[in-house]
Amino acid sequence: MKIRFYNAKIMTAENDCSISTGELCTCDDIISYVGNERNTDEKYDREIDCQGNLLIPGFKNAHTHSGMTFLRSYADDLPLREWLFDCVFPREDKLTPDDIYSLTKLAILEYLTSGITSCFDMYFYADSIASAAVDMGFRMVLCGSVSGASSNVKRLQDEYDKFNNYNKLISYQLGFHAEYTAELELMKEISLLSQSLKAPVYTHNSETENEVKECIERYGKTPTALFEELGMLEYGGGGFHCVYFDDNDMEIFRRRNLWAVTNPGSNTKLASGIAPICIMQKKGINLAIGTDGPASNNCLDMFREMFLVTGLQKLLTKDASACTADSVLKMAVSGGAQAMRLNDCDCLKIGKKADIVMINLNRPNMQPINNISKNLVYSGSKENIKLTMINGKILYENGDFHIGESVENIYMKANKIAERLR
Amino acid sequence: MKIRFYNAKIMTAENDCSISTGELCTCDDIISYVGNERNTDEKYDREIDCQGNLLIPGFKNAHTHSGMTFLRSYADDLPLREWLFDCVFPREDKLTPDDIYSLTKLAILEYLTSGITSCFDMYFYADSIASAAVDMGFRMVLCGSVSGASSNVKRLQDEYDKFNNYNKLISYQLGFHAEYTAELELMKEISLLSQSLKAPVYTHNSETENEVKECIERYGKTPTALFEELGMLEYGGGGFHCVYFDDNDMEIFRRRNLWAVTNPGSNTKLASGIAPICIMQKKGINLAIGTDGPASNNCLDMFREMFLVTGLQKLLTKDASACTADSVLKMAVSGGAQAMRLNDCDCLKIGKKADIVMINLNRPNMQPINNISKNLVYSGSKENIKLTMINGKILYENGDFHIGESVENIYMKANKIAERLR
Repeated sequence: MKIRFYNAKIMTAENDCSISTGELCTCDDIISYVGNERNTDEKYDREIDCQGNLLIPGFKNAHTHSGMTFLRSYADDLPLREWLFDCVFPREDKLTPDDIYSLTKLAILEYLTSGITSCFDMYFYADSIASAAVDMGFRMVLCGSVSGASSNVKRLQDEYDKFNNYNKLISYQLGFHAEYTAELELMKEISLLSQSLKAPVYTHNSETENEVKECIERYGKTPTALFEELGMLEYGGGGFHCVYFDDNDMEIFRRRNLWAVTNPGSNTKLASGIAPICIMQKKGINLAIGTDGPASNNCLDMFREMFLVTGLQKLLTKDASACTADSVLKMAVSGGAQAMRLNDCDCLKIGKKADIVMINLNRPNMQPINNISKNLVYSGSKENIKLTMINGKILYENGDFHIGESVENIYMKANKIAERLR
Repeated sequence: MKIRFYNAKIMTAENDCSISTGELCTCDDIISYVGNERNTDEKYDREIDCQGNLLIPGFKNAHTHSGMTFLRSYADDLPLREWLFDCVFPREDKLTPDDIYSLTKLAILEYLTSGITSCFDMYFYADSIASAAVDMGFRMVLCGSVSGASSNVKRLQDEYDKFNNYNKLISYQLGFHAEYTAELELMKEISLLSQSLKAPVYTHNSETENEVKECIERYGKTPTALFEELGMLEYGGGGFHCVYFDDNDMEIFRRRNLWAVTNPGSNTKLASGIAPICIMQKKGINLAIGTDGPASNNCLDMFREMFLVTGLQKLLTKDASACTADSVLKMAVSGGAQAMRLNDCDCLKIGKKADIVMINLNRPNMQPINNISKNLVYSGSKENIKLTMINGKILYENGDFHIGESVENIYMKANKIAERLR
């Protein structure tokens, strides 16, 4: 399948957020050309007149729990502990693999509407998540989610082997839920596994003040310092949330080239706090953005997240110049790709994967065109996603989904599950 | 023109955010029926199958400067004073009435995409704003924007008389820019005018910490206390922003039944701070929501504002249960209408104005349907606006505008102005 996008503005995001005009062509799952418009006799299966609209690499959602869609708007406006222990955990216990398959599909639909072309998904039933992604054509990086006893490391290794040899849309990274849900022996085993595989490790890290406080009570050090001491960080990886970081945590992240994945929508809605993104930027720490799950956010929308990343920094630092639009775009696009080890999905360049989004600039919120990066970060919304292509296939275009199944069917199944678990 | 919406979910917002199923009919500019579906022989010009989607009263944008669209994404990521004095003011000086007419039209397009059916607009050249609104069919409440010397009160009175007898889509309320741009004599004259007209007065109030500090240095009291002392608040009115309020300010607002109009997007992006909405709610102060202008926000999107209203309160109070979704919806719908004295636009009821929005629930971000109010506030976006009707006319439907002019023409003019003033 060969597709040509012509009459386009293009933000390759290879080095910066600069924009050129021209055309982009794909051949199967790969970008075969990016550059000036050409006169060519080459035949394409489809030629798309972009009408001056903008092509960008897809957004990367570097932390989420897709299957939590069933809890959207079920348990909001509640204190955090009540939300988690009275509403979330008891219902999660009743989830089946089939549920996760259907609920993940609903999340993927929403990712497509927001120009998100890949996710770093941490949830139960990896088989179900992988099947949902493959069946819809979505690129998914599974993140290990083990917790509890050291024996669970076996599952981590099995899943790592299985899902890194599963399908070209699927990959897997070592991960565990969090320090506060893992026994010390499990974390030691994960460190050994990481070293034997030379593989990075990811986990929730310092999301709340209490989490850090309790870790210090248990181990005399912060989660990050504990992971470092256990030898878990030698091959990279990252932390989700990273709200309560001290200087030493940041120094470890910088030295180990780890990724801090920020989730401002979730941290806002759950009243967790504001991550020190500006300080991390100054220290040169790698940054990416995640929506977190739909129970805590509640939407899966990279536009909202991008505005919040910079907006909350402006509030936190009392400086309207904090955290520029270009720096936020970089986190949402190439940052996320690198955090998830999707090294072929970080920019629009010949040979890279065809994970491409077309932004509709011909909408009121994108006019006038003083500065396109700033339009995207400060006034962009889902209404601007005109087309989402993943691995060379157009899965979403002009509001319609091309995912081999009716959306009504996906909605119906999600509602049935939500009703059953209510 | 008689229109029937059937097979609908309906949130009348008359008393609360409860939802029923049924139909709603309009006759010219008025709602002629809301209730259960009927078997009737009545003939309609159009019958719309809502397919189970939701009808709500239009959102009310209770504070904006529509004409500032030309500055969108022009001067972001700058400290506040540099932004205002080096970028905004010098360019505003060059604006013509024709510019404001075109730039206001661009803003109105965006309001329609966000389900906003009326605005409280404070900007230069009231004639241009009113013409743009009337020509597009948009409901606009003009807010006086005088500043400087006492002689300017004449313009306020003239505009009040003119625009309250202009067109059924237009009304006008007394207002002035702010304490820090008005001479004391002007504020005294405005107070007298308010008393003679028995009319409310609106102004920017306590947006930044410095504004309040400098007012106290000048007058020995806060802006609110000053206005009260001048007798300006006897017939109601309100303040825009209200970020830095002390107990006495709040007590005055409560006692005088004034409206605090919060603008969280702008307060975030300009690093101004977080208004104490939860405290105001507990004190029973009237609340409404505004986007502020597109230079400071930068988008004109009630969904973003609603999420920020509650989200920032959760962060500020460190309480995830702060500021419920229903209370935010009330601010955005009936609160705004009452703040702007649009007493016929506050809810869906027989005899009220036909300012109606259809929300597309058949989108991934609205599924599953656990709770529709929460879906709207926590995961709603512009993509959910299926139809916007103002004064009985459908101005926006399925992404297309019906405003008697091509959108391309409006975009083209706005870009020309932006280029000229760059």
